[in-house]
Amino acid sequence: MYFASDNTGITHPKIMQRVVDANTGYAMPYGNDEIMGKVRADLRTLFEPPDAAIYLVATGTAANSLALACYTEPWQTIFCAQYSHIEEDECNAPEFYTGAKLTLIPTPDKMAPEDLAAAIARRPKGVVHMAQSGAVSITQVTEHGSVHTLEEIRALTAVAQAADLPVHLDGARFANAQVALGCTPAEMTWKSGVDVVSFGGTKNGCMGVEAVIFFDPSKAQEFEYRRKRGAHLFSKHRYLSAQMEGYLADDLWLEMARMANDACARLTKGLRNHGAEFLHEPQANMIFARFPRAVHQKLQAAGAKYYVTGGDVATGPAVEMLACRLVCDWAMSDDLVDQFLSHF
Amino acid sequence: MYFASDNTGITHPKIMQRVVDANTGYAMPYGNDEIMGKVRADLRTLFEPPDAAIYLVATGTAANSLALACYTEPWQTIFCAQYSHIEEDECNAPEFYTGAKLTLIPTPDKMAPEDLAAAIARRPKGVVHMAQSGAVSITQVTEHGSVHTLEEIRALTAVAQAADLPVHLDGARFANAQVALGCTPAEMTWKSGVDVVSFGGTKNGCMGVEAVIFFDPSKAQEFEYRRKRGAHLFSKHRYLSAQMEGYLADDLWLEMARMANDACARLTKGLRNHGAEFLHEPQANMIFARFPRAVHQKLQAAGAKYYVTGGDVATGPAVEMLACRLVCDWAMSDDLVDQFLSHF
Amino acid sequence: MYFASDNTGITHPKIMQRVVDANTGYAMPYGNDEIMGKVRADLRTLFEPPDAAIYLVATGTAANSLALACYTEPWQTIFCAQYSHIEEDECNAPEFYTGAKLTLIPTPDKMAPEDLAAAIARRPKGVVHMAQSGAVSITQVTEHGSVHTLEEIRALTAVAQAADLPVHLDGARFANAQVALGCTPAEMTWKSGVDVVSFGGTKNGCMGVEAVIFFDPSKAQEFEYRRKRGAHLFSKHRYLSAQMEGYLADDLWLEMARMANDACARLTKGLRNHGAEFLHEPQANMIFARFPRAVHQKLQAAGAKYYVTGGDVATGPAVEMLACRLVCDWAMSDDLVDQFLSHF
Amino acid sequence: MYFASDNTGITHPKIMQRVVDANTGYAMPYGNDEIMGKVRADLRTLFEPPDAAIYLVATGTAANSLALACYTEPWQTIFCAQYSHIEEDECNAPEFYTGAKLTLIPTPDKMAPEDLAAAIARRPKGVVHMAQSGAVSITQVTEHGSVHTLEEIRALTAVAQAADLPVHLDGARFANAQVALGCTPAEMTWKSGVDVVSFGGTKNGCMGVEAVIFFDPSKAQEFEYRRKRGAHLFSKHRYLSAQMEGYLADDLWLEMARMANDACARLTKGLRNHGAEFLHEPQANMIFARFPRAVHQKLQAAGAKYYVTGGDVATGPAVEMLACRLVCDWAMSDDLVDQFLSHF
Repeated sequence: MYFASDNTGITHPKIMQRVVDANTGYAMPYGNDEIMGKVRADLRTLFEPPDAAIYLVATGTAANSLALACYTEPWQTIFCAQYSHIEEDECNAPEFYTGAKLTLIPTPDKMAPEDLAAAIARRPKGVVHMAQSGAVSITQVTEHGSVHTLEEIRALTAVAQAADLPVHLDGARFANAQVALGCTPAEMTWKSGVDVVSFGGTKNGCMGVEAVIFFDPSKAQEFEYRRKRGAHLFSKHRYLSAQMEGYLADDLWLEMARMANDACARLTKGLRNHGAEFLHEPQANMIFARFPRAVHQKLQAAGAKYYVTGGDVATGPAVEMLACRLVCDWAMSDDLVDQFLSHF
Repeated sequence: MYFASDNTGITHPKIMQRVVDANTGYAMPYGNDEIMGKVRADLRTLFEPPDAAIYLVATGTAANSLALACYTEPWQTIFCAQYSHIEEDECNAPEFYTGAKLTLIPTPDKMAPEDLAAAIARRPKGVVHMAQSGAVSITQVTEHGSVHTLEEIRALTAVAQAADLPVHLDGARFANAQVALGCTPAEMTWKSGVDVVSFGGTKNGCMGVEAVIFFDPSKAQEFEYRRKRGAHLFSKHRYLSAQMEGYLADDLWLEMARMANDACARLTKGLRNHGAEFLHEPQANMIFARFPRAVHQKLQAAGAKYYVTGGDVATGPAVEMLACRLVCDWAMSDDLVDQFLSHF
Repeated sequence: MYFASDNTGITHPKIMQRVVDANTGYAMPYGNDEIMGKVRADLRTLFEPPDAAIYLVATGTAANSLALACYTEPWQTIFCAQYSHIEEDECNAPEFYTGAKLTLIPTPDKMAPEDLAAAIARRPKGVVHMAQSGAVSITQVTEHGSVHTLEEIRALTAVAQAADLPVHLDGARFANAQVALGCTPAEMTWKSGVDVVSFGGTKNGCMGVEAVIFFDPSKAQEFEYRRKRGAHLFSKHRYLSAQMEGYLADDLWLEMARMANDACARLTKGLRNHGAEFLHEPQANMIFARFPRAVHQKLQAAGAKYYVTGGDVATGPAVEMLACRLVCDWAMSDDLVDQFLSHF
Repeated sequence: MYFASDNTGITHPKIMQRVVDANTGYAMPYGNDEIMGKVRADLRTLFEPPDAAIYLVATGTAANSLALACYTEPWQTIFCAQYSHIEEDECNAPEFYTGAKLTLIPTPDKMAPEDLAAAIARRPKGVVHMAQSGAVSITQVTEHGSVHTLEEIRALTAVAQAADLPVHLDGARFANAQVALGCTPAEMTWKSGVDVVSFGGTKNGCMGVEAVIFFDPSKAQEFEYRRKRGAHLFSKHRYLSAQMEGYLADDLWLEMARMANDACARLTKGLRNHGAEFLHEPQANMIFARFPRAVHQKLQAAGAKYYVTGGDVATGPAVEMLACRLVCDWAMSDDLVDQFLSHF
């Protein structure tokens, strides 16, 4: 019963098979392999703009930091939600790559457009004392398991556009959001005002691969220099390409995200029936919920793995509600969900 | 006939199999997987110091840059040979990660200890105007295919130690040097005064993995922060671990290096017999040689792939000697070498 | 009637005279001038620790950024009040010099120790994902004109010490706070747990000079490299030294701060009598207050210079209360204050 | 007899007087003072382009580093002569501000255009492995006391332009070069292909002020952000402005440079008569020469101050020729020169 994260499970066997299949013959290094040509074509088809610039890196932090670096000057600030991954979980990598600072929009989950607008308005253009307004970064799915609707994305990008600021979408769980919304990739990104997206694969069944997609190809050359300078250019690039190619083939990426979201929905329903309280309404593959210590104790005794953030499981009143995070990946079965719920 | 580089060939099937084998069950992320425990133990056994701090990253540039960053202050300079990889092929990544500059020791290949000593002596300690002397970085195998003898390494590290400077070894082709010297890993590193080594796997049959080995574990925690900040910490780390585990198992790493070096020796002998001139004496798996344009033309017509650096193959006198680089990887067969030589 | 800032007025004539007096004969450059020897001795006497390391730079932003850089690693975060100068008015200079990020403690003015403690507690030591806790920076006088009591400083430094974090004091208006508290420099700094202080001169009657004082001299050498690397080491350093020497002589620095604070108190009293509302209780030389638009209009017509932050002076109801900032420097006379008040 | 440097002498009394004169009334901060308006007009008249962007900073290292940062990307390299000030005497400040590396053109003094061209040619455009070619920086007067002729400057800028690279002129001793060449400022800069110049004042009779002049004003806004982020924006800017205004008034800057160059010429002639050997032909206000140890001993006994670089003055054969550097500033009198020469 592994509900700790979507980075502890296995790579989907079909993706692993692509990597194995790629291991034949000589291949041009550094992104000039044939499979990468197919990946570029596939992603352009998927996202629609025929001249999007497309790159692969191996970690989500690299994707975010390098994408932002192409859209930020070192005297600027990047606006993001208070609990964004780029703030909470990347150990200053965005600051390292951009030279800029982050300005956190206070919110329990998603940024409100009016709060973003207010934060931008505080920084007068051209006055050198305060860091200047730079890119806006939106996380989809949020770190708290919510999904921005297209309207919500558009409301945020409209604020950015009004201030002439570029927009980055951190799509580490892009597929889960896509499935939740039932929209197209284009609708969730450039058609809603997004300039560059980190299109995640690692958390959804790949070994370690993320695409960075620039809808405006003018940033392409800069990205290539920054990627190499950041030591993120792979010589044997074919193994990144093969993962992404397998990820996209036959909509495997959506199939896996659907499996994860469905498992999460089943778990949510069960928890709700058992009286759990939800800190955020689960909309993708993550649950933030509270239930009694006694249940946590039973679950842990049964070997369930997940993060308890609300206090000490071992000691305290049995009925006290303790908060936790539960993450479902594509490999989570109905049986495991039901087994988990059986301890309530 | 692929002689262009050691990064265009396949991953050794045994290593690929380890990656496939690792794809089962849940594994702790971020370097806490069980296989990594074995890798640490294996490398400690191999290198001998029982408390060496050992980390994996996916690119050689990351290994070099992060290793150097732990031993360099931003007001210092790193000493290296003029044609080092860190100077020529890493697009300012070492400068990005360290904040320091590189001081190039003029030399066609290996640094001379007296030139290193002179360069250090030019920078008075504690005088703030000039960048202060920082780490010394030695490349083994050099970018020109030579191998430092143990005596040569020791002569350089003695100069560093006399000035109280740490020493980094860029071992992107560590295995090839090891085989060429017939020494132990310990002899080539800490027993010869090296503080930290980039122990390469990628150029010698892995998909993409390099170990950074600190013989003094006091830098361990700093490396971990720097690696994460550089976006080089893999969540699904088991796939890095599995590569390295397979690389070390049954001395596969040495077997592959021996195959590459042997192919290179066969090719060297053949070229010599055919009157080729050598810019550097080949000692590992790379050849820098000159032979007539007419031969280059025949080779290229036959589909041979390698870098010609000495001029235009298509146009000019048939007898003119044009320089080129030829690299052999582990998969280079005697047949392919002989086929190459048949065009002379 | 210049109430806009404490950086628009003249240098105190006695300080200017010291600069003129210093302009004779040859003097060693880069901080080795004789006057600097006297400055070091004077500041050590003033602050008491006999081996404090003392440096001069020309801007407050340089003092803060360089001081913090000596106490921060690039994978850390610096804790400060939401409206600190280092956050609001230094255009990413602290981030540039430290490589770190700032974590803002939400507060209208001073940090609350419990909020600082909570912010530190959110960042588990040794977990690489989140930026690690680094230095704490306290602004004294705050950007909103308040003065931390010694008890308040100690409560904050106690939180820092409990987490083993160093403490920086941004004393751009150190003298004004000193006068307000009636304590010694030692009491306001190292005796209250401060490790390094930016001791301001520029805002209090100097041309442009700030001292950075390390109570633990072990950071001295690092500061010297960082200052030179930041291009803040003056060759003709004697003119910085002369300013600081004149600033300290005969307690001129305290005399000027007293004049500024007294003028501010007179203005505060007058404003209060006229029904102004105070956003923060003025405790040094700055006032944040609201009074009717009609009064603002009369003042501006009379040529008074100050920042109105609460809205448009020209248009709107005459009785509407508009917020503004009023700063008194040492040269502010009773007459000018009374003249200002006469427009109510 | 102070021949150690041009940064140990006094500020010219006329410049000091301007600073004193500026110390009256309120003045807008941060470069918006009235005197700065006059400085901008004066420098535009002097350099001719009516829309040049003009800024002041207090150190030469700041001027160079900030100017270069506006013309360099962090994945590039800056080309400069081997013994440039930016390489030898700025403790990585150019690297800190630009993120780039320096590529040193080997030369005892001035860069040869063909060597510059060769260094540029080594770096193929668009290939990400090697740092890309960036700005070219020329030092005028060189660190070895030579002056580039206009033809020499144009030969270097032609190479830069052919590769589409911008050109920076480090004019810490601009005035000395100007006097030596007898040309106009425009001829020595933009009319000869220079894009941005560090126009020095500090080494030629100012307290501490350097102008950065962009002939293309499109870099103006970026410079302002970078200057503030580097902590080099002065709040009480009028005192920088006043120095530069006095420096330019009545061609004082040229008068002082002429005095320094004339003293140097007198000293050169005397040394030559006494059989001194010159390492470089003195063309401005610096001499690099060798003369016997016995003379050094007499000079030092008489209190002469200068740097001996060729060995130990105290011990060794009396006739051995020891190299030294002798610098004349504007205040160097014929008497002092003759007094120095009297010890031969």
